[in-house]
Amino acid sequence: MTETLEAPGLAIDDATADRLFRTARTVTTFAESDVTDEQLAAVYDLIKWGPTQMNVSPLRVLVVRTPEARARLVAHMPEGNQERVTNAPVTLVLAYDPEFHERLDVLIPHMPGAREIFAGDADVRADVARKSALLQAGYLIVGLRAAGLSAGPMNGLYDGIDAEFFAENGWKGLLVVNVSSAEGADTTRPRAPRLSFEDAAQIV
Amino acid sequence: MTETLEAPGLAIDDATADRLFRTARTVTTFAESDVTDEQLAAVYDLIKWGPTQMNVSPLRVLVVRTPEARARLVAHMPEGNQERVTNAPVTLVLAYDPEFHERLDVLIPHMPGAREIFAGDADVRADVARKSALLQAGYLIVGLRAAGLSAGPMNGLYDGIDAEFFAENGWKGLLVVNVSSAEGADTTRPRAPRLSFEDAAQIV
Repeated sequence: MTETLEAPGLAIDDATADRLFRTARTVTTFAESDVTDEQLAAVYDLIKWGPTQMNVSPLRVLVVRTPEARARLVAHMPEGNQERVTNAPVTLVLAYDPEFHERLDVLIPHMPGAREIFAGDADVRADVARKSALLQAGYLIVGLRAAGLSAGPMNGLYDGIDAEFFAENGWKGLLVVNVSSAEGADTTRPRAPRLSFEDAAQIV
Repeated sequence: MTETLEAPGLAIDDATADRLFRTARTVTTFAESDVTDEQLAAVYDLIKWGPTQMNVSPLRVLVVRTPEARARLVAHMPEGNQERVTNAPVTLVLAYDPEFHERLDVLIPHMPGAREIFAGDADVRADVARKSALLQAGYLIVGLRAAGLSAGPMNGLYDGIDAEFFAENGWKGLLVVNVSSAEGADTTRPRAPRLSFEDAAQIV
């Protein structure tokens, strides 16, 4: 049992609001402890329920764990991000599947023609997949934190990553995320400011 | 005090995991109760802390509340989505600001030249802004749920929306989200399946 004070205006408790958003940081140094595939599966099984366009669910996840795979990924990171990938317990490459329509028989059973809507136009598919997969990447970053993990999202050199890892399955890389236990992970500088609601929103 | 049983593999309690992801649904019918600007500000003040590339924070939010503004938005929705916008207590147009670099003096104080990195290339800015704003849109959908609200994300006709609402500030629409109190909101059909971790992930 934990004391659950609700954060002002929220329906979740203060500690959870901190864990998911308010004190969570993009980590650049990592805990020594392992991050298991079971932990990553628990994160996925949580965030897979987040909404995507028509439920197309195009996010795919490459889990980079072995020293060999890590070295292949480091070779396709900008120089400033190489050390982090080298040091992280595990690194995810978040990607989208441009052939997501081949799974719509499973994902959209209530609309038997769903596959055909997307089958003819690869450009439309790439737009739809990229957009929904980035929403899912947002859910996944929150989900990692919900599992007691910290996320260190950053960009890779995606042409190289796609050629190195996705030549067969055709996935397209979107984001690289170092993952560590939250406890023991850290960041480099004080939290930078954000825009206020008044600055970022307009009410009509 | 609430009993806080942790969900398997997670560091948040079961009820919160349900609220944020597992039982939350994309709503299509709405509670009669109002959604206040204060509630929306609390959501924004939670999710503004989520990570974006270099902290560029390009997400902008148009809050469509008055009957007049609602009618202007409905005119730029696909026919199948018009009734939902008409009936929702409040609807958000999530957008990105292609001129986000003009705020980087505030957002990236530790890197004085940050504005200039983006000032010269509008295409790069659009790519960066769209990508980070979609991550933020993912955070926002989770944040609405964290505030006891339900989200109904869907697509609008963005060329028309941009011309109608963003002619002056230059924002670019990305997603339209109906918002309602979770209690009293509902959805139309049973939850569709998702891909398993084994289907969506590859471990190397």
